[in-house]
Amino acid sequence: MSSTLSPGIAPALSDLAARLRAELGEDAVVLDPEPRYAGDAAVRAAEGTRFLLVLPRDVDGVQATLRLAHATGTVVVTRGAGSGLSGGAVPEEGAIVLGLERLDAIREIDPLDEVAVVEAGVITADLSAALAPHGLFYAPDPASARLSSIGGNVATNAGGLHCAKYGVTRESVLGLEAVLADGTLLRTGHRSIKGVTGLDLTQLLIGSEGTLAVITAATVRLRPIPVARRTILARFPSTADAAAGVNAISRSPVRPAATELMDGGTLEDIDSHTGSALADGDSAILLIELDGYGIAEQTADLAAALTAAGGTVRTVEDVAEAEHLWELRRSGRGSRADRLRLGEDIAVPKSRLADIFAQLSAIGIRHGVETSAIAHAGDGNLHPSLELPRRTGEGEEEQELPTPILAAADDLVRAALDLGGTISGEHGIGTAKRRWLDLELSASCRALQRQIKAAFDPRQLLNPGKAL
Amino acid sequence: MSSTLSPGIAPALSDLAARLRAELGEDAVVLDPEPRYAGDAAVRAAEGTRFLLVLPRDVDGVQATLRLAHATGTVVVTRGAGSGLSGGAVPEEGAIVLGLERLDAIREIDPLDEVAVVEAGVITADLSAALAPHGLFYAPDPASARLSSIGGNVATNAGGLHCAKYGVTRESVLGLEAVLADGTLLRTGHRSIKGVTGLDLTQLLIGSEGTLAVITAATVRLRPIPVARRTILARFPSTADAAAGVNAISRSPVRPAATELMDGGTLEDIDSHTGSALADGDSAILLIELDGYGIAEQTADLAAALTAAGGTVRTVEDVAEAEHLWELRRSGRGSRADRLRLGEDIAVPKSRLADIFAQLSAIGIRHGVETSAIAHAGDGNLHPSLELPRRTGEGEEEQELPTPILAAADDLVRAALDLGGTISGEHGIGTAKRRWLDLELSASCRALQRQIKAAFDPRQLLNPGKAL
Repeated sequence: MSSTLSPGIAPALSDLAARLRAELGEDAVVLDPEPRYAGDAAVRAAEGTRFLLVLPRDVDGVQATLRLAHATGTVVVTRGAGSGLSGGAVPEEGAIVLGLERLDAIREIDPLDEVAVVEAGVITADLSAALAPHGLFYAPDPASARLSSIGGNVATNAGGLHCAKYGVTRESVLGLEAVLADGTLLRTGHRSIKGVTGLDLTQLLIGSEGTLAVITAATVRLRPIPVARRTILARFPSTADAAAGVNAISRSPVRPAATELMDGGTLEDIDSHTGSALADGDSAILLIELDGYGIAEQTADLAAALTAAGGTVRTVEDVAEAEHLWELRRSGRGSRADRLRLGEDIAVPKSRLADIFAQLSAIGIRHGVETSAIAHAGDGNLHPSLELPRRTGEGEEEQELPTPILAAADDLVRAALDLGGTISGEHGIGTAKRRWLDLELSASCRALQRQIKAAFDPRQLLNPGKAL
Repeated sequence: MSSTLSPGIAPALSDLAARLRAELGEDAVVLDPEPRYAGDAAVRAAEGTRFLLVLPRDVDGVQATLRLAHATGTVVVTRGAGSGLSGGAVPEEGAIVLGLERLDAIREIDPLDEVAVVEAGVITADLSAALAPHGLFYAPDPASARLSSIGGNVATNAGGLHCAKYGVTRESVLGLEAVLADGTLLRTGHRSIKGVTGLDLTQLLIGSEGTLAVITAATVRLRPIPVARRTILARFPSTADAAAGVNAISRSPVRPAATELMDGGTLEDIDSHTGSALADGDSAILLIELDGYGIAEQTADLAAALTAAGGTVRTVEDVAEAEHLWELRRSGRGSRADRLRLGEDIAVPKSRLADIFAQLSAIGIRHGVETSAIAHAGDGNLHPSLELPRRTGEGEEEQELPTPILAAADDLVRAALDLGGTISGEHGIGTAKRRWLDLELSASCRALQRQIKAAFDPRQLLNPGKAL
């Protein structure tokens, strides 16, 4: 591959490649990358987009890449594990895709300080595995934990199943190592829970989706593995009843580690691709994990609250069965060749779950789109699914979503905002949600964000056109 | 008072006062404020500093004040309850002190969403009192909770006793209402635990000490009041042993709600001004609060860990005695007329508590200064006290600290940094700690902070010379 780009935009990729190979080594620079590097798990670059894949082995390599990009005016799209769902890592023509998968060292685990220093490319589940022998865990666990990397989690402020109790990624990051647009190394934050020296650049970088700097490592806080865990499955006649069950938990003194609401459609979908038998008409399930001390008391209080709210409650005593249920939840929805599907990510104040489920249903009917949803109910985060059967003859590679699905998504995002919610709970904005930014953020807010972007990246080379 | 300022710096205060009275009403503008408005709880403006006190009754009044300040180039120093300890609210000559004490409404408490919307002037303890009937509490509780306001807590990212378990103020703030330098109203954040739309301006404003915007209200997350609480008092032969006790807790699965380490000097000081009998030679105390489910199991695990570490452990069953012990802790150190004292605020990784206590002692000997310290041990935050007897004839109003105390403070801050810590755990930088900023923050980091400041406040009118 020896493509040449428009003059004045960037030097030829082959020239960039040669210069980077001299600094980073032959195998760190790939001119004809595998197709997966052209996108994330949901969005791909247009066919034929030319980009250069750089896979540095260390932070020096990241700095060298950014120095050259800065000197040549080349756009840099940072990529973690490629598990994103909003297009944050999709390259544009002539860009460098800076993959951090080789920065995969857990530099340090300190059980007494309860911190770990972890490079961006470490897979989230691998960190947890490394911590287990110390009796510790890293709380943020997006459903993608076995695929996604710490760097990507930090860059998108990833959520997951345990956020209502343990917080999102933001609450577990104490400090960052990052490389600025010009290649300068930046260290932010601290190693103690507390620290208030100056503006908090750590917090500003978290969730910035590669637009401010390239995050190369994080100092994360750890927690002791709970002394006990218990799974409870509560079935309700409808999603509205299940949402009432969530309110009943809010009124109780129990705070589960995870509270997942699966509606009838979601249960049917899981059954259809796993062989499970969860669905039962329109009934909805709350799948709940309790953890910590006093697990029997917690279980009793929770069961009482859910039963009073009309739920049929079962404590899953068998550990293997409990693990299987969580596995079913995490494996999520199947990818069916005969369906076109848009997976959404919105959040509402948690007392409004019944309203957003009702809206989802009404929107589906209005646009002739099949809808269902799973919710991290404890934090009001909803992943609706908007689907249509694929027309005969359409290949599975067909990406274009039909108008009814897009129109339904638009109505749904607006419904979330009307209920006091947000257009993205945890997946980020990327390219997929930019069109709704103005609905949530004021002009002043967006202007400030753009000025902050300009302070970090005056030449607009870091993931331009994403997130902001 | 009708002072005139240097021409070109700001219009005469009396002229500003007249214009603001026309907009905000007579009683909202004070030309001769009480002396307390000239500083916070630790630092005062130089004698004779002229400033205008504005006490708006609502957000419109805050906007009007900022619009006028912006139009006239007048510096605005925002003030919460004046309980700060780092000089963040100290006015400069010709400034407006914008006091938010009248913005004292709790606008909303929503038990099902577990959020409250609280104006900046609400006293932190008053929020907790208002939440109690709902079975909820607001977790951040600086020792000053009965004096300090939510706005000040947010502006300094206040800490307190319960941070290791519940996080600092940052972790309890979901969204903000703030007024920008030119008077524009800004709303940031969300009402759900999750939300990742654009750069997180909420997090950037938290801890910005009045340098970026005037925070007028916060949407805060609430938590259920724990089903049980228990106080444990463990005595150790020395601070080093007590620090080993903290490590023993880290190795156990128990995470207390609060873990306060008081050394011999602190216990003597408390005894001397409260009549208690806590001190016993060089021995140190860990005062611990457990909360939540399984309190008996938690107590047993904690007691076993502390006993094995050499502690003499007593569970305080009597509620009144437990409350009294926490009251003694919170009342903190006495203010003695015959002493000159500097109260410090540093943090270290929590496994290094023994090291910083040893350093503190050595520094005291080196500079001939008496030292003692209390620590929020669970998060590594230490409040050392550096003292000397006041010389005969010095009045209590004498503020200048003698060189040995200042030199000892300098050594202490450097020692904290050498141990991987920070120059301010929770009090903020204000004016008191600016001289150490370069020791902790790199030139790149400070440059970025200044650029962010410029984006929010291009005319440098919001609390200039503080924090950054």
